[in-house]
Amino acid sequence: MKFKEIHKDSGSKARAGLISTDHGEIETPIFMPVGTQASVKTLSPKELEDVQAKIILGNTYHLYLRPGHELIAEFGGLHRFMSWDKPILTDSGGYQVFSLKELRKIDEDGVSFQSHLDGSYHRFTPQNVLDIQRSLGSDIMMVLDECAPYPSSREYAGKSNQLTLKWAARARELYETMKPLYGYNQWLFGIVQGSVYEDLRAISAQELIKMDFPGYAIGGLAVGEPKEDMYRLTGLCTDILPRNKPRYLMGVGMPEDILESIERGIDMFDCVIPTRNARNGTVFSKNGKMVIKAARFKNDQKPIDPDCSCYTCRNFSRGYIRHLLNANEILGLRLATLHNVHFYLWLVRQARENILNNSYVEWKNNIFPFITSTIVD
Amino acid sequence: MKFKEIHKDSGSKARAGLISTDHGEIETPIFMPVGTQASVKTLSPKELEDVQAKIILGNTYHLYLRPGHELIAEFGGLHRFMSWDKPILTDSGGYQVFSLKELRKIDEDGVSFQSHLDGSYHRFTPQNVLDIQRSLGSDIMMVLDECAPYPSSREYAGKSNQLTLKWAARARELYETMKPLYGYNQWLFGIVQGSVYEDLRAISAQELIKMDFPGYAIGGLAVGEPKEDMYRLTGLCTDILPRNKPRYLMGVGMPEDILESIERGIDMFDCVIPTRNARNGTVFSKNGKMVIKAARFKNDQKPIDPDCSCYTCRNFSRGYIRHLLNANEILGLRLATLHNVHFYLWLVRQARENILNNSYVEWKNNIFPFITSTIVD
Repeated sequence: MKFKEIHKDSGSKARAGLISTDHGEIETPIFMPVGTQASVKTLSPKELEDVQAKIILGNTYHLYLRPGHELIAEFGGLHRFMSWDKPILTDSGGYQVFSLKELRKIDEDGVSFQSHLDGSYHRFTPQNVLDIQRSLGSDIMMVLDECAPYPSSREYAGKSNQLTLKWAARARELYETMKPLYGYNQWLFGIVQGSVYEDLRAISAQELIKMDFPGYAIGGLAVGEPKEDMYRLTGLCTDILPRNKPRYLMGVGMPEDILESIERGIDMFDCVIPTRNARNGTVFSKNGKMVIKAARFKNDQKPIDPDCSCYTCRNFSRGYIRHLLNANEILGLRLATLHNVHFYLWLVRQARENILNNSYVEWKNNIFPFITSTIVD
Repeated sequence: MKFKEIHKDSGSKARAGLISTDHGEIETPIFMPVGTQASVKTLSPKELEDVQAKIILGNTYHLYLRPGHELIAEFGGLHRFMSWDKPILTDSGGYQVFSLKELRKIDEDGVSFQSHLDGSYHRFTPQNVLDIQRSLGSDIMMVLDECAPYPSSREYAGKSNQLTLKWAARARELYETMKPLYGYNQWLFGIVQGSVYEDLRAISAQELIKMDFPGYAIGGLAVGEPKEDMYRLTGLCTDILPRNKPRYLMGVGMPEDILESIERGIDMFDCVIPTRNARNGTVFSKNGKMVIKAARFKNDQKPIDPDCSCYTCRNFSRGYIRHLLNANEILGLRLATLHNVHFYLWLVRQARENILNNSYVEWKNNIFPFITSTIVD
């Protein structure tokens, strides 16, 4: 992995960077659309290119269960399987497994769990999730971590943090000897945990830095804690993490969360919000969010955002999209999703441009009241 | 409506024609993808253009109920509402209403029915379905007819046929005085009925011809009768219908039905099979149909048809599409639908080319064993 900090904003910790992978370059800050089951829900790879997606995320837990990483390896890896030739990041599967609650049991060496699909028994370890991600052939792999729930006691969070660090060390060790399967490089990111406890976060970041990962993620945030905690802990972590490595805030977030986190020095984001909320009838724009399924948009002949250049806004009205969603037409899900992903990627491009101009904070303060508002007409 | 028979095949009644509408020309034979609720299910207008769709169908019954023809009129008609600037044909709504069975009551002047959506009461008459289609702004409108169920007694079919003719006359009369709403021409097709009774079919066709419609449809077939009856009655009708008007066989059908009917002089088709069957996991190709959801395609790295030039076949494997369908990913529905609609339109283009070469029957006989087979590897 090559990462370069191109420019740091003069008024904040925000930075513009460049990640180079064997599947292409990624200008940061970047948002990664989530392609859980080898598909960014409702979108084609062509559409992802059209909205200028530069890297997408795949979920190891889901892909391992269905269709299975061995099958994906038969197809030559996830890129070929899904016909996406730009970079892919895969998570470790840990987050999904720990979300299973009743269906999983954790021990010192890994976690045993039952499939949410058929109840079958499985096990993830720091080592085998790397093997799985090697088979998937992602450009960026993630270590297995325990994402402590919110709230967690200090005692639980401390123990969990130690376990995550132990697992990270094992993964780092295996990674050292791992040869990529498909002739291109795969990189491994460590994940800072520590719940909402500043000292634990600091320990986590410092210990991971000693292991020298190609990049660092911040996990265990956006799990229900107050937003101020999320922002504060994000800033604490980025103060510790090295400038010459990319920083990825996992599972974040709403447009405003992304802007706040960019200000605190985050380079990479992923979240299901633009895709999931689109399917539930909420669209985002620089003018605010809009419950486009609402009856108030029935007669509305305007596009979601008249200034937006996405296929949806260039061709379709709010009233038509509302009709499609209400009539359960798949095209409605597609058009709303396409717009939202386009908007998220537009937002991070704008952020980058303003970082390069040293105007990030001013720009953010200007746009903030709009993107956090709700459009009603 | 301008229709021109460009060339008649030397070995059959198959013909190549050209329909000219204010939204563009349509080379026939043509297949019309069905866009029931102002959307050809799962596809965007851009994709419809990519697969060379020249005209699509909208369902008056569904559009009348949701979002309502008045709303669509506010948007400037169906073309603008759904962002499709090529020709549109709308049916009369009769077929859907008569399918409601328990929820409708027919009389001399029309049919009263309850909405399948909310049970609300409505009424269609030969006159108001024209008004509705005028609001929708379709290029080709259809008269209200009664589609007699199969089987129908001769007595029922005869009475029904007379009612349909009476309604056709009323529609024709109103059409004479109707001014189009949007500045472009709208044309009205009569519909030949008569169930499986040859004399009734002949009466129906002859009476409609006297009324001098811009085009003629054959309705009431593909409703459960044996295929031989469908082919025979289609041929009987096309023997009577004038050569200088387009002939449309409603609701047909499987690829083989389309080829048989082209041979009998049909110019236009519509059917939900390519779109609906795609969503159920069946795809068509020149080599046969394929239940692509089947486990046998799990590891299959070939495209549906290696010779097919559609986006699906250029980029994705059977194994990937199978995975998407099994994982309930919308992209699977999209890719299968796109391919099927592309195939249907490829098929009618090939038919046309072979008509122009006087090789229609030979071509049909060659391709027939393939398209009617099932691909298992």
